[in-house]
Amino acid sequence: MRIGIIGASGYAGQELLRLLASRPGDEVVFVTSRQEAGQRLTEVLPFLASLANYDSLKFEEPKGLAGRADAYFLAVQHGAAMSLVPELLVGEAKVVDLSADFRLRDPEEYQKWYAPHSAPEFLAEAAYGLPELHAETIKKARLTANPGCYPTSVILGLAPAVKAKVVDYSQIIVADSKSGVTGAGRGATLSNSFCEVQDNFSSYKTSAHRHAPEMVQELSLIASEKIDLAFTPHLLPINRGILSTIYFKGHSGVALEELWGAYQAFYAHSPFVRLRPLGASPKTADARGTNFCDIGLFQDKISGLFKIVSVIDNLCRGAAGQAVVNLNLMTGKPEGFGLEFAPFRP
Amino acid sequence: MRIGIIGASGYAGQELLRLLASRPGDEVVFVTSRQEAGQRLTEVLPFLASLANYDSLKFEEPKGLAGRADAYFLAVQHGAAMSLVPELLVGEAKVVDLSADFRLRDPEEYQKWYAPHSAPEFLAEAAYGLPELHAETIKKARLTANPGCYPTSVILGLAPAVKAKVVDYSQIIVADSKSGVTGAGRGATLSNSFCEVQDNFSSYKTSAHRHAPEMVQELSLIASEKIDLAFTPHLLPINRGILSTIYFKGHSGVALEELWGAYQAFYAHSPFVRLRPLGASPKTADARGTNFCDIGLFQDKISGLFKIVSVIDNLCRGAAGQAVVNLNLMTGKPEGFGLEFAPFRP
Amino acid sequence: MRIGIIGASGYAGQELLRLLASRPGDEVVFVTSRQEAGQRLTEVLPFLASLANYDSLKFEEPKGLAGRADAYFLAVQHGAAMSLVPELLVGEAKVVDLSADFRLRDPEEYQKWYAPHSAPEFLAEAAYGLPELHAETIKKARLTANPGCYPTSVILGLAPAVKAKVVDYSQIIVADSKSGVTGAGRGATLSNSFCEVQDNFSSYKTSAHRHAPEMVQELSLIASEKIDLAFTPHLLPINRGILSTIYFKGHSGVALEELWGAYQAFYAHSPFVRLRPLGASPKTADARGTNFCDIGLFQDKISGLFKIVSVIDNLCRGAAGQAVVNLNLMTGKPEGFGLEFAPFRP
Amino acid sequence: MRIGIIGASGYAGQELLRLLASRPGDEVVFVTSRQEAGQRLTEVLPFLASLANYDSLKFEEPKGLAGRADAYFLAVQHGAAMSLVPELLVGEAKVVDLSADFRLRDPEEYQKWYAPHSAPEFLAEAAYGLPELHAETIKKARLTANPGCYPTSVILGLAPAVKAKVVDYSQIIVADSKSGVTGAGRGATLSNSFCEVQDNFSSYKTSAHRHAPEMVQELSLIASEKIDLAFTPHLLPINRGILSTIYFKGHSGVALEELWGAYQAFYAHSPFVRLRPLGASPKTADARGTNFCDIGLFQDKISGLFKIVSVIDNLCRGAAGQAVVNLNLMTGKPEGFGLEFAPFRP
Repeated sequence: MRIGIIGASGYAGQELLRLLASRPGDEVVFVTSRQEAGQRLTEVLPFLASLANYDSLKFEEPKGLAGRADAYFLAVQHGAAMSLVPELLVGEAKVVDLSADFRLRDPEEYQKWYAPHSAPEFLAEAAYGLPELHAETIKKARLTANPGCYPTSVILGLAPAVKAKVVDYSQIIVADSKSGVTGAGRGATLSNSFCEVQDNFSSYKTSAHRHAPEMVQELSLIASEKIDLAFTPHLLPINRGILSTIYFKGHSGVALEELWGAYQAFYAHSPFVRLRPLGASPKTADARGTNFCDIGLFQDKISGLFKIVSVIDNLCRGAAGQAVVNLNLMTGKPEGFGLEFAPFRP
Repeated sequence: MRIGIIGASGYAGQELLRLLASRPGDEVVFVTSRQEAGQRLTEVLPFLASLANYDSLKFEEPKGLAGRADAYFLAVQHGAAMSLVPELLVGEAKVVDLSADFRLRDPEEYQKWYAPHSAPEFLAEAAYGLPELHAETIKKARLTANPGCYPTSVILGLAPAVKAKVVDYSQIIVADSKSGVTGAGRGATLSNSFCEVQDNFSSYKTSAHRHAPEMVQELSLIASEKIDLAFTPHLLPINRGILSTIYFKGHSGVALEELWGAYQAFYAHSPFVRLRPLGASPKTADARGTNFCDIGLFQDKISGLFKIVSVIDNLCRGAAGQAVVNLNLMTGKPEGFGLEFAPFRP
Repeated sequence: MRIGIIGASGYAGQELLRLLASRPGDEVVFVTSRQEAGQRLTEVLPFLASLANYDSLKFEEPKGLAGRADAYFLAVQHGAAMSLVPELLVGEAKVVDLSADFRLRDPEEYQKWYAPHSAPEFLAEAAYGLPELHAETIKKARLTANPGCYPTSVILGLAPAVKAKVVDYSQIIVADSKSGVTGAGRGATLSNSFCEVQDNFSSYKTSAHRHAPEMVQELSLIASEKIDLAFTPHLLPINRGILSTIYFKGHSGVALEELWGAYQAFYAHSPFVRLRPLGASPKTADARGTNFCDIGLFQDKISGLFKIVSVIDNLCRGAAGQAVVNLNLMTGKPEGFGLEFAPFRP
Repeated sequence: MRIGIIGASGYAGQELLRLLASRPGDEVVFVTSRQEAGQRLTEVLPFLASLANYDSLKFEEPKGLAGRADAYFLAVQHGAAMSLVPELLVGEAKVVDLSADFRLRDPEEYQKWYAPHSAPEFLAEAAYGLPELHAETIKKARLTANPGCYPTSVILGLAPAVKAKVVDYSQIIVADSKSGVTGAGRGATLSNSFCEVQDNFSSYKTSAHRHAPEMVQELSLIASEKIDLAFTPHLLPINRGILSTIYFKGHSGVALEELWGAYQAFYAHSPFVRLRPLGASPKTADARGTNFCDIGLFQDKISGLFKIVSVIDNLCRGAAGQAVVNLNLMTGKPEGFGLEFAPFRP
């Protein structure tokens, strides 16, 4: 399979290159990057030197790409993806879009949080690429919208409870998420400079973040009713990892063990979700570099609220790793093909 | 004033020594440490070499201390403090206890979260050392219970809203707190080793943490009713700092600006609370090394919940700095005496 | 192939488990750990859950191990290894010893830096497991002494220059090395606690470190004369990585380009050494998680000294990764079998 | 005294503001910043809110500044300083220049490493602001060139040995320095972004760095002969701190204790140099936030070379703190006025 990566110099693109470096049978045939166009791939990213065919690749401008690959990963800014998808989706080509452009079903909702949508005719056919929820749809799709990193963590943390109808929505669900800095992308900004981030911690976009409507959409779909939640992102002084601490009220009489049973059943056939034993706290480092989502369940002693702690690697499960899984499903390969390695620790 | 520090080799003790190193008029006359007894202070803590009289001090065993100082800081484990307080409180002596031993009014509550209390007769007279709430009581006290670091951050974040009676308690308050590693104390444990903490993040004591009942006690006192909350502590890969993200529902019709007005009024005469402009997110590094508590107010766009972000330095405002303020108040000095310096950044 | 790991709970042991988790054809049949004996592997190391057969393994006491595997990795303290090797080396068994016990040829030298040697009869047959220098010997060995992490970095950085006879030894070679904290092992010590290491940097064992005689031994062997050097280790606030900055004087008339030619020739057939283009500085993160050694060459503008910058991952190339390469060579597999993946970045 | 800070939004400027926030008797009357001109100081730097008169200051363009202050700190890029100094030096005004513009005595040397010098007539009168070497000159100066951060660390580490004539220059001195990221200034660059620096380490400008000629100039001055050295800077993943490991050969027969005696004598009256006991390694964190230079002496067991480890805080002793000391000396105040506080640790 010939693979093209559009937007390969950003962190999600680099992570795709890392994951594909030792993938048998497939080949990365081109990489694009507006910023690095003309440069040799391994000059810009020396950690990839001597791997696969990478020493021979140069970054290209993202032009005239249709037909050059069998599968495309779009790791570009929102807005750029929807202008590329129509031309790429020819013949048997498959596209996994890591941007936000095809995640929201409703073009008005997209416009409210992002900008007017220029290719709304593809919204209906795009699969929402969360395999634990939509594997069958993804298998048939030629276009998959890879979920946002925060939504991946929050939706996987809540889906079994919502599905099991144990949540009392009179208490608004709180999702307090903390992310590593790679989530902000590779770029030169003062706010992401070492001296501003190191030994520091803060929330950001505290009133509203674009990833919240994705959570509302998917959780409402499972619940068959509109679900609100209060979501807050924070910036952790780490490279990778998202941990979401999620608070909800259970219906009267629901015990922690019962809840745990619902989670075990829901994820019984999910190779990339690891339920931690009751009482054990998932840690971001334990999932680092992999597609795993580690989940822990707790009940607050004072208030009785349930707390779900959900951990992923934002670059792998929250972006490139999940994208590879989606391509695997879209092309008839095993879900975990090319991802059978251990987390990177310490 | 002669000052004695009991438990001076831990991080709170070190922070007291840092703050007292350039304090005019007062002198540290002894330091104790079971672990380092017999060692020279500046051999164990070389960063303090050449400062004040520190090169001449040796760590002592914590024995026979009564009468040796005019003021004592207890920076020891809970349990140890209550066995020392009765003998130290002689004559005009003042004691600021940084442990948990005299924070909870109710000895049964103490026993529930810690152990049986051996000096319950002092609970009534101990002032709860949060100056923004109890300055007048502290001024008259000979024994002050320095608040826990998490409670300092959460109570200061919620007090104005509770006082202003704008909170709708049908939604349980959520306090999601993140702390630097110094909060766990100075000691050799695998879980606090560099390789386990660096590039990692997790919650801990997720179902129940001993600092929660302090929050319940103080907030209920302000509200004149019992207030529950769901509190979760997390471990940040930073040395110092606590950031608490607090979620509550306002009564119908309460606007963010009104809430902000209540906070401005409440802290109008508090030199160590800095309200951030609406929309600005406090950062742990901006308060580092000082007694400041920085607070930001937000309203969630989707759910309408209010979010308070409250930031302190856990070692300074959450321990040693607040202890110095309390001693200032107990001895008739200005609240900020010896603490008039800028945060340490970057 | 049945593989046994003795000392599997330390960081080198964990790294072996990480590398072997997705190795086709071989199986880890037992893991030992005095400290964790009786515990389930994935309870102690949850990052390894759901991988290979790891959920079914328990840590054992290191007793009665002979015959249970075809290959053994010893990831234990020096002293412990030499007491185990004689019983393990039965039949066709292969042993890769990651400790220092069989690295020094001369038992008196071992005694000088460590302790008396209890199995000196194995010193002569043990291969020094640096594949770029001793591949042929390693292929025939049943016992390989895996080099120390610092020596790996320094010897690979200097070997081509020494071999090419361009070094003027009238100027003593300086090797200034900086290592991540995993090099100190997994253990609860104050000096390796997060708050002591984070935002800190220092040298240690500044006058003498046990890894220096390894460097002297191997470099002298290449030079066919005794070579001295001044070596200083430092502790970096990072998890993994060693960077050695090496200073030497070239013989009169030796130009940088000539030196570079010597390095290119020396490493022409070494898949795990990556020479960086002239002028480019290797970075620890670019080799992280792999067996690569990245090398950069420079000449000081003022003094004319040559500077070699040599980078490895201390846990992978400096320990477990090199051990796997050695086992590959000892068992007739390709040098890089099971190690064909990209560095972990960022 | 009215103080003006030109270039106050960079890290050196911020550090000046931190140090001056609690300085009795003096006042910062203006701050300039091209980038932030028009912004309120505490909006850009919220950590300084509520301190001194800072809430009332706005960043200005650096124009028309002559006569507005009694003392000026120039914390601007090299090149910018020499264009400002002539107009500022009117009447009794004092200028401390933190840039490189007046450090090198020889304008040709300046041109070689930087650019042509536009105000060479001030080179002769500018004091080189290293108080341990030039206090008497600084006291009489109206213009002081604040030394570079690396030179401060290396020159203080070598000066006593050079002065005592114990160095054998047939072995070229090696100065291997490691610096925190603030040394690169406050700015948005990819190479200083968190994800590129965190968990990473490398050398930079490995062949030649502009700070080397400063070292050569000052050490040659002490030695009364031209001294070469090989200097290499490295980037540490910490905010502040420089540690220099310096290697030199002693003349035959010079013992470590004798060398130590020379250092004790040289720094007997230097309040800001702390000699560590023989065998103890200085750590960057122990000097953090202060003007201290901590020095340790060692002798290599194998090669016999001497090793000096010299530690400073690059922003404080290496920039703003030393600048304040210089202003103290220039205005007849005690050397340490306003700097009598403890290092910031942990």
